[in-house]
Amino acid sequence: MSKKYVYLFSEGDGGMRNLLGGKGANLAEMTRLGLPVPQGFTVSTEACTKYYEDGKVISEDILEQINVALANTEELLGKKFGDVENPLLVSVRSGARASMPGMMDTILNLGLNDQVVEGLSRLTNNPRFAYDSYRRFIQMFADVVMELPKSRFEVIIDEMKEARGVKQDTELTAEDLKELITKFKAFYKEQLGSDFPQEPKMQMIEAVKAVFRSWDNPRANVYRMMNDIPYSWGTAVNVQAMVFGNMGETSGTGVAFTRDPSVGTKALYGEYLMNAQGEDVVAGIRTPQPISTLKDVMPEVYEQFVKVANTLENHFKDMQDMEFTIERGKLFMLQTRNGKRTAQAAIKIAVDLVEEGMATKEEVMNKVDAKQLDTLLHPTFNPDKLKSATPITTGLAASPGAAYGAVYFTAEAAVAAAEGGKKVILVRMETSPEDIEGMNAAQGIMTARGGMTSHAAVVARGMGTCCVAGCGAIKVVEEEKYFELNGKRYNQGDIISLDGSTGNVYEGAIETQEAEMTGDFGKFMAWVDEIRTLNVRANADTPKDAATAVKFGAEGIGLCRTEHMFFEADRIKAVREMIVATDVEGREKALAKLLPIQRGDFEGLFEAMGARPVTIRLLDPPLHEFLPHKDEEIRELAADLGITFESLKGTVESLHEFNPMLGHRGCRLDVTYPEIAVMQARAIIEAAINVNKKGMNVVPEIMIPLVGEVKELKYVKDVVVKTADEVIANSGVNLTYKVGTMIEVPRAAVTADEIATEAEFFSFGTNDLTQMTFGFSRDDAGKFLNDYYTKKIFESDPFARLDQVGVGQLVKMAAEKGRKTRPDIKLGICGEHGGDPSTVEFCYNIGLNYVSCSPYRVPIARLAAAQAVVNDKASKKEEKSA
Amino acid sequence: MSKKYVYLFSEGDGGMRNLLGGKGANLAEMTRLGLPVPQGFTVSTEACTKYYEDGKVISEDILEQINVALANTEELLGKKFGDVENPLLVSVRSGARASMPGMMDTILNLGLNDQVVEGLSRLTNNPRFAYDSYRRFIQMFADVVMELPKSRFEVIIDEMKEARGVKQDTELTAEDLKELITKFKAFYKEQLGSDFPQEPKMQMIEAVKAVFRSWDNPRANVYRMMNDIPYSWGTAVNVQAMVFGNMGETSGTGVAFTRDPSVGTKALYGEYLMNAQGEDVVAGIRTPQPISTLKDVMPEVYEQFVKVANTLENHFKDMQDMEFTIERGKLFMLQTRNGKRTAQAAIKIAVDLVEEGMATKEEVMNKVDAKQLDTLLHPTFNPDKLKSATPITTGLAASPGAAYGAVYFTAEAAVAAAEGGKKVILVRMETSPEDIEGMNAAQGIMTARGGMTSHAAVVARGMGTCCVAGCGAIKVVEEEKYFELNGKRYNQGDIISLDGSTGNVYEGAIETQEAEMTGDFGKFMAWVDEIRTLNVRANADTPKDAATAVKFGAEGIGLCRTEHMFFEADRIKAVREMIVATDVEGREKALAKLLPIQRGDFEGLFEAMGARPVTIRLLDPPLHEFLPHKDEEIRELAADLGITFESLKGTVESLHEFNPMLGHRGCRLDVTYPEIAVMQARAIIEAAINVNKKGMNVVPEIMIPLVGEVKELKYVKDVVVKTADEVIANSGVNLTYKVGTMIEVPRAAVTADEIATEAEFFSFGTNDLTQMTFGFSRDDAGKFLNDYYTKKIFESDPFARLDQVGVGQLVKMAAEKGRKTRPDIKLGICGEHGGDPSTVEFCYNIGLNYVSCSPYRVPIARLAAAQAVVNDKASKKEEKSA
Repeated sequence: MSKKYVYLFSEGDGGMRNLLGGKGANLAEMTRLGLPVPQGFTVSTEACTKYYEDGKVISEDILEQINVALANTEELLGKKFGDVENPLLVSVRSGARASMPGMMDTILNLGLNDQVVEGLSRLTNNPRFAYDSYRRFIQMFADVVMELPKSRFEVIIDEMKEARGVKQDTELTAEDLKELITKFKAFYKEQLGSDFPQEPKMQMIEAVKAVFRSWDNPRANVYRMMNDIPYSWGTAVNVQAMVFGNMGETSGTGVAFTRDPSVGTKALYGEYLMNAQGEDVVAGIRTPQPISTLKDVMPEVYEQFVKVANTLENHFKDMQDMEFTIERGKLFMLQTRNGKRTAQAAIKIAVDLVEEGMATKEEVMNKVDAKQLDTLLHPTFNPDKLKSATPITTGLAASPGAAYGAVYFTAEAAVAAAEGGKKVILVRMETSPEDIEGMNAAQGIMTARGGMTSHAAVVARGMGTCCVAGCGAIKVVEEEKYFELNGKRYNQGDIISLDGSTGNVYEGAIETQEAEMTGDFGKFMAWVDEIRTLNVRANADTPKDAATAVKFGAEGIGLCRTEHMFFEADRIKAVREMIVATDVEGREKALAKLLPIQRGDFEGLFEAMGARPVTIRLLDPPLHEFLPHKDEEIRELAADLGITFESLKGTVESLHEFNPMLGHRGCRLDVTYPEIAVMQARAIIEAAINVNKKGMNVVPEIMIPLVGEVKELKYVKDVVVKTADEVIANSGVNLTYKVGTMIEVPRAAVTADEIATEAEFFSFGTNDLTQMTFGFSRDDAGKFLNDYYTKKIFESDPFARLDQVGVGQLVKMAAEKGRKTRPDIKLGICGEHGGDPSTVEFCYNIGLNYVSCSPYRVPIARLAAAQAVVNDKASKKEEKSA
Repeated sequence: MSKKYVYLFSEGDGGMRNLLGGKGANLAEMTRLGLPVPQGFTVSTEACTKYYEDGKVISEDILEQINVALANTEELLGKKFGDVENPLLVSVRSGARASMPGMMDTILNLGLNDQVVEGLSRLTNNPRFAYDSYRRFIQMFADVVMELPKSRFEVIIDEMKEARGVKQDTELTAEDLKELITKFKAFYKEQLGSDFPQEPKMQMIEAVKAVFRSWDNPRANVYRMMNDIPYSWGTAVNVQAMVFGNMGETSGTGVAFTRDPSVGTKALYGEYLMNAQGEDVVAGIRTPQPISTLKDVMPEVYEQFVKVANTLENHFKDMQDMEFTIERGKLFMLQTRNGKRTAQAAIKIAVDLVEEGMATKEEVMNKVDAKQLDTLLHPTFNPDKLKSATPITTGLAASPGAAYGAVYFTAEAAVAAAEGGKKVILVRMETSPEDIEGMNAAQGIMTARGGMTSHAAVVARGMGTCCVAGCGAIKVVEEEKYFELNGKRYNQGDIISLDGSTGNVYEGAIETQEAEMTGDFGKFMAWVDEIRTLNVRANADTPKDAATAVKFGAEGIGLCRTEHMFFEADRIKAVREMIVATDVEGREKALAKLLPIQRGDFEGLFEAMGARPVTIRLLDPPLHEFLPHKDEEIRELAADLGITFESLKGTVESLHEFNPMLGHRGCRLDVTYPEIAVMQARAIIEAAINVNKKGMNVVPEIMIPLVGEVKELKYVKDVVVKTADEVIANSGVNLTYKVGTMIEVPRAAVTADEIATEAEFFSFGTNDLTQMTFGFSRDDAGKFLNDYYTKKIFESDPFARLDQVGVGQLVKMAAEKGRKTRPDIKLGICGEHGGDPSTVEFCYNIGLNYVSCSPYRVPIARLAAAQAVVNDKASKKEEKSA
């Protein structure tokens, strides 16, 4: 027997979303609930997949099933498709598993042809309605199926209106419309070389195909990419009997939400138009009325609608977004779905649903989109002040938040100005690791070059500082301390405002307001913490980051990158002295200068985190990152270090690497120069002892990066332990510490059972692990990844969302192997993926202990962790019942 | 009960090599066979491992076991250790699992002290012998145990000889020697601050410790690295009762082989000295006699020795290398082992053993070291001519073989001279991919810079061309066409000779002789092929390489790198035109020029390989490799291509990559520019059709490189298949072809089950897989890998010998997953590891179908594959009996 590809609305239910799409499943569910739904059928998403598999052909068995469903619908409604006397007209609409608004196309009034239109005219006794319906159908069909844009037909309408001397479409008579139809068909034939199809079934099949095709149109592909919707899902097609809102003054159509989607208040919210079809509401020619006024126009229908709305909200336990049509005083529901809402509304609705007793805390976890939370965490411009502002340019919205300040063009100038109490915007051609201090001191960062993964963007997001990157319209002249835009010069000290959430740049200062984790937001996040079991830590390198992390609910630091401390002005010189030293003694001398500074850094960090665990990673980047590369800079530094230019140039050249990603870095540095590990271990342990003497109880976690082989880990660990134990013994106090490793090299994942004999914890560095597992570096992949998206080889950015099939498999394998060797090993993830909701869920599912992400993503990760618990329970329940 | 760490010779046997070391196991085996062996005991390799684990301490239970074994030995021999009347003296010698000649140290005459020496003197009635033994013991003990070099004592001997007016040590009297002992002991105390130890047991324990320590000395570590001997094996220590070859004219000592180790002829081969101890034979002060003359001196002893030698050879079924001592007319066997031999001798002995009926074909497979075969495959200098030649300098022996020719300094000049019929030596500062044609035309290559893995070395080995690399003493002035050495100038056209097996460079021409795979060698390799089941293919890019591969027994081409064809003069221009083209049309136009050339290349290759399978890899390297990078070269090329300097410079810069290893290359190029895959697929298929029309039956295998995701493979495969099927359809003939992929990206290994849905074969590219799995690039790792060897983190070069624990695990996983999806999938390896014997064995064990390596390593791989079969059977037999 052939597989079932077509379902009557009466055959489905709300749980069949994957097969019927969201729209189809909800039409079926509304039918089940006995609500007034024009009947019809859904061609499943599997039919769409099969259509593509078969080379863009609808197979015979699917065609046959459509015919059967159509016959059933005809019987149910007592109308016949293509029948002149009592015609069934249908709408054909797409409906994917996830809502993809605006992405797919709709055809109304399908089934009309030259004969049927006459029958409809007689049946409704409304020729103008019939002809108007037909001309609209021709336009929509031509547009959606034949790719002949609607607007091309509008020209013909305009010509006729001019000829008739009228302004509005509605002023055209039935006879005018009949003539228009003749013109439309002639234009159709002229443009497309064939007659407008008169055979209704052929119209339907072509429309179904057009919906399938539209799944693969560029807009749809872009939307899916942005929203992590797999291409493989496909779309369903809904064929539904038409009802008409344009049959006179007792007909109408509208859309409504059960709660206010922008703030969340409970009240019907929406609008309608009498004597209109759906597209008129959207088109904006007539002004729709607020839904509440329907009460006065058609009190009974309004009352019925309110009831239906309540039924739906109670049934779906969520705010509903509904489409309805009133045909000659009778209400029909065309669609319902969980309504899109702002983050603020989402929080309020979730809290209200629980407090109204409509849903449990667990049930509302998924009512807030974790990613959306981001908008609630950053400063925003005061909306009143923003109204009167016009952007002077727009760049990439690289790191959210709003800020204003005086522009400065070097890290040093920015730091100096900030220390002088000024609010600073750092403006650079592009940033590099040496700018860290300036970026840290700035309220906002603007760069002329670089994309969403440029240094400025990545670091700013990590810091939670707003950033507008790749602002190509500005010309930055760093040496002369100005930038130019549209012929105007902005000098050092001039004030601008940046919106990192939109990419907009404004002249002058716009007042900002801070984000608050209080009220409903605070309440909701408390529930999140009740439900989740996965711990959430933050990646933080400074006491300031740490404080932000704690504010956002971080339960520890999962990654402190010690090298970030090395770039600051007071220490970079010592770092460079260490690098140019030619022997152990020279290096140790330079390291001795760094020791007290690093110790101070760690003390600050420990103090900011209180009793929470702090994982500190030993030096990771290759040493050449700390040296200048231009001859003049080398010359300057050589003079500063008291060595010759040639000698320093030689060092720089000898440190050059063909593939720095795959070079001399991470624990490899400690193998070559164990004295670096000695200094860092000493700084960490001394800092912990110092703060513990003040009554704290810090248990530092020392993390050795880039390990690929257990003996390599053991070598460096032995150095660390020897140093630490000596320091502890000499201090006369007790101190517990842990030594663990990053798992970021594929070999470490594969040999995790061996690695775990030495490591007390694993932290998955999924940035590097992704690069090495795929074999492409993030810096270079930008050049070809777009081709991979366009050609549907990748559906999401593997650096933003963990590749669970490949990289995830290594993570899972390593977690299992690690636990096998050392059952109590602590497992976490500290790549940027740690703040991605789908990755958080994956980490929960494979049993990690924590995720660590940038401070500003901590609330997102917390919510994602709670959602993971809820989803896991749901899927286990499903399995059990299956 | 404590573990057993010490074994009497009578407790062991020859199978206990891992525990007792080679020497100890064979002493036990000889004891078992009833041969005359001075008795004693072996401290096991596990005791050595424990010594290191315990922090370089010999544990109490081991000390106790040594005492027990010593007591047993005393009882057996009726002598007592440290006893003045009837003293037991012993030798203490190292003995690891694998023979490590010269790596470890030996102490003789241990047990002597001021009292015992007097007893020995009385007992032997030979004071001179007794004192001489004691002074030797002091010297050896000081040297081996206390690291006070022997030579420091020689000064004292020389002073005494001068004082006595004598020339030879032997002219010193017993009294002289007694006085010498006093002086030695004084010097010992002066240098070391303590008296020479008089307590024999303490002497013994210190000696045992010294042997253990010597396992970790630099010489031993280097030897192990070179010979793939794991550090973890440890060494055993043999404590054996002394017998004396220096007790007068009926005493003596010698070494002998049962066959000639340099050519393999069956006959006792060796030498001896009467009235001497072992070290005298080596020292070279007296000239030893050929073993055959012993027949005349001591006919009975000789006859007994011949018998023993035969017994041992028959027993071990291999040529034996024996040490013996005659004490007062009585023969003692001190050691036997399978003798080291030249490759030529190894082959002859293996063939003879089978033909003599002493061993089966399978049994002799392991009698030839696969790696050693290399020396039989390359041209060598005529030994007679070589005798009179002195090297002018020596570089790295980078690629074996011998050659002479006229020096040329550019690839172009080398090609021109070779085309003019000259024998050419290409001399370069260092080589780069543009030199390929010149390298190919040359008889030999010499570079001033670069190591064993430099471009010159790697490419030369692949070509089988002899190469001396990193010849630091020469100063190459390429522009002025000369090199300078020791103040002498060698101009273009001057003749030199290179020996790539030794690194020696000679002035003038030395006659060479070709390698032949005939005679015993041919016979042996035929047996190899009978036994092995793993196929062996070659990596070959040209008909010339292919012909060499076939000559050496390759059964197909496992890897043809098409890009190597792109560098040649007649095509590089078209390649560059393709790269600078700004649209598909431009690229297609340039590719159209390449098509007939590539087709011709493939026709040549198919013709050279006959019916054997040929795997062709699509373009792999990043495009920037085909462009120049220096401004002046860019300027020149821009003019040549008819574009502006700025435009070409822009292209070069836009192609720059941070990590070229992880950049835009492999199948990623085909995803971006499918037209490249189209051209290459067309060239391959058209070539196959053309040669098949001539009556051949080629089934080309098209290999898509650097795949990490099945959809990526499918995308490129679809392009290839579409092109191929069109070409075939248009040709009107039938052609079968296969499409498969490299597995060289970790993600491909992890998702091999998915990849196999599209790939008809996998070829493991273990070079890249090693780089990505370890996360270091070969080019950069050179800077730190030495530290990894020194610190014993790595015991072998992962680029030479497959890392079976990590990378191998991925290979195994991928093979299993691939077979699960597609049971008949063909699996091979084409990284450089394919020619490494241990890797070949691994590939056999995990069930690959073939290995592919450079043509000159094909015989090595064939033998290794046969050895794998034999070893596998042996280990299965062992498992079964266990």
